[in-house]
Amino acid sequence: MKQIGVGILGFGTVGAGVAEGLIKHRDVMSKRLNVDIVLKKIADLDITTDRGFSVPDGVLTTDASSVIADESVQIVVETIGGTGIAKKLVLDALNAKKCVVTANKKLLAEYGREIFDTAVQNNVDIYFGASVGGGIPIIRVLREGLAGNDIESIHGILNGTCNYILTRMENEGLPFDEVLADAQKLGYAEADPSLDIDGFDTAHKACILSALAYGFQPTLDQVQVEGIRNLSGTDVKYAAEFGYRIKLLACVAKDGDEVEVGVHPTLIPFTHMLANVNDAFNAAMVKGDMSDYTMYYGRGAGRAPTASTVVGDIGDIARNLAHNETRYARAVPSYAEGTVKLRAAGDISSRFYLRFMLEDKPGAFGTVASTLGRHGVSIEAASQKGPANADSSMTVVVLTHKAKSSDLDEALEEIKSSGVVAADPVKLRMI
Amino acid sequence: MKQIGVGILGFGTVGAGVAEGLIKHRDVMSKRLNVDIVLKKIADLDITTDRGFSVPDGVLTTDASSVIADESVQIVVETIGGTGIAKKLVLDALNAKKCVVTANKKLLAEYGREIFDTAVQNNVDIYFGASVGGGIPIIRVLREGLAGNDIESIHGILNGTCNYILTRMENEGLPFDEVLADAQKLGYAEADPSLDIDGFDTAHKACILSALAYGFQPTLDQVQVEGIRNLSGTDVKYAAEFGYRIKLLACVAKDGDEVEVGVHPTLIPFTHMLANVNDAFNAAMVKGDMSDYTMYYGRGAGRAPTASTVVGDIGDIARNLAHNETRYARAVPSYAEGTVKLRAAGDISSRFYLRFMLEDKPGAFGTVASTLGRHGVSIEAASQKGPANADSSMTVVVLTHKAKSSDLDEALEEIKSSGVVAADPVKLRMI
Repeated sequence: MKQIGVGILGFGTVGAGVAEGLIKHRDVMSKRLNVDIVLKKIADLDITTDRGFSVPDGVLTTDASSVIADESVQIVVETIGGTGIAKKLVLDALNAKKCVVTANKKLLAEYGREIFDTAVQNNVDIYFGASVGGGIPIIRVLREGLAGNDIESIHGILNGTCNYILTRMENEGLPFDEVLADAQKLGYAEADPSLDIDGFDTAHKACILSALAYGFQPTLDQVQVEGIRNLSGTDVKYAAEFGYRIKLLACVAKDGDEVEVGVHPTLIPFTHMLANVNDAFNAAMVKGDMSDYTMYYGRGAGRAPTASTVVGDIGDIARNLAHNETRYARAVPSYAEGTVKLRAAGDISSRFYLRFMLEDKPGAFGTVASTLGRHGVSIEAASQKGPANADSSMTVVVLTHKAKSSDLDEALEEIKSSGVVAADPVKLRMI
Repeated sequence: MKQIGVGILGFGTVGAGVAEGLIKHRDVMSKRLNVDIVLKKIADLDITTDRGFSVPDGVLTTDASSVIADESVQIVVETIGGTGIAKKLVLDALNAKKCVVTANKKLLAEYGREIFDTAVQNNVDIYFGASVGGGIPIIRVLREGLAGNDIESIHGILNGTCNYILTRMENEGLPFDEVLADAQKLGYAEADPSLDIDGFDTAHKACILSALAYGFQPTLDQVQVEGIRNLSGTDVKYAAEFGYRIKLLACVAKDGDEVEVGVHPTLIPFTHMLANVNDAFNAAMVKGDMSDYTMYYGRGAGRAPTASTVVGDIGDIARNLAHNETRYARAVPSYAEGTVKLRAAGDISSRFYLRFMLEDKPGAFGTVASTLGRHGVSIEAASQKGPANADSSMTVVVLTHKAKSSDLDEALEEIKSSGVVAADPVKLRMI
């Protein structure tokens, strides 16, 4: 049985999980994959802190470039994160003709093109299964299992922190700020939670999914991103009354030669599989023209689940390297650039949930309804909620049929300036 | 770009779906996989019936062996089904050093060892992604994505016919026979439905999952298989009152050096992801020691979803063949034979739902409870249902804590002979 050597850059949470997985499961993996995968090197600035398991002598080093240069290392695993030294080391490894595994979504979302091109130039492979969905094999599925499908859409709950917060807001009727503070105390949210709760982490992942599904990766600044920071418990409650649960959803779809990518808090019917993805779990639902709907569910983060996917990627590369004489690089997921373009956010259609605080005036709702109608937004359901508010305004919730985003925005601007609403309307998407 | 030729044996539902997929998606697959996959041959006895799309001249033939012998065909796809000519042709193709893709669960469940060994001897690969779960990539996930995990358990809803029937029994309160007859009329169930509704199709798939997860494939006759034919609408209703939905579940698990494989109608809590898998959809939930729980959901059957997975498998092999100089066969999934064994059905523990028709006698329930207790079966909940039955017996439903199957069976035998029950108790598993 051939032996393939692995070097890990970064001995943090994920790096330690990968190292432990490789050591613990070396035997069963050799039986399943018919190749012996050996952990040769781990580089980190801190090689003294106890990570809870023992590493063979000579494996730990503080010199990352020595890992890349090591002739016994054929696969380099990057678990440092960020786009600084991690970017340099990934490019160095590819240029040294090493195959690379990374879980670094930020790196791929921002510098994917350069990294993929470097892999192809060097005829080595790069795997990044854990960059989206942690322990969920959504990347593998799009690259391989569904390769023979036209992908019609992907809807993903891709950020565990947001999903944990939303689940508690719904179940316990708590406001966002209170749940966030508690999540930070429990370690479910970072001290600076912006990357998660403002939707950017989800958007990074949506951009990578677009590249895999459509061969076209938009940049983060081109994508409309809404987080959950401003989500009101009132809307969580009203959504539930209509039979919906609110999730932060990445939506990636294609219509003709336009790709739609967006991140929004979105109402999902209770009966939909995605509505039942709770707490820190993630899931992605993919609609292919042949496969129809398929869904992938699991832990989107955490040491062991992320390491599980990284180790699976290592196994794939090792099997390729062990059983074949040449390495291969895959097609770069930018094959459709120039032939498809990103759809403008305003041109994306959706159903919408709207909440209005109507002034206590005759005809106020009539003004809302007729303004929506004049802009082509038709109403599916409308319901007055509760007694009058303290300012004597009345709360009315409207669910719309599918409408173009820019049409709705124009209607809402007109409603705001018409004097019939006591506050800015709330607008959320629905699937 | 290298070209890889495909030959399809069988131009029925799935074969036609595969052919159409290969023709329709040739261009996008070449971009994604960097290899040009060309449909070269299709063999079927009937090559005149219109399949709804056009096939290039010279592709259709009635001679299956000419497809295997064709030098331009490197991948042979078997979509004939069954274990007769399909088995011969698969072995012929492997012996002719062709890689094989099949969706034939019966063939793999009954002759998997011979087929896998033949592939290894000839150093060619066999893919069978669509043999379990149709359009769901559960095979791929176990072979690759979760390869670095110890798999603790797999719970699968793997038969769309049963799930369709169970969903309608629950939603419409209809008895089994009526829904089955309707399912047959609608084409959701075969004229001879036994393979589906008696659980054997699910059991075939469970045996294949065991091979992939544990390197050990039991034979069908070693596995305890219960179908849904005798499931009463009464139990569907009572299960719902306790917050459970009944699904036909394949359970595959490992405990020490014993593998558990079984197929049973099983109560699943409403809040469990598997409980929300309805109609003809399938899903499998896998617990790995690193990944934790992951779930895969989609259409378990049907022309296009099954073809989607077959085409994905073809893509994998084509990429291997195009980018590498040698072919390779994977490790045979029987590596653990001799080191693990199948756990006897009676030794498998589970929680149970029990329904008793108690005679109208003082102390009847006391006899039930004390008999269960004497055999080590402890009660989690018990509830009397409805008014007395026509024979003046009382219906009592008992939910147990985890108990060994043989202990429970002994208790039930004793209860039956104690004269306190008017009919045989109903026993169902719970997760």
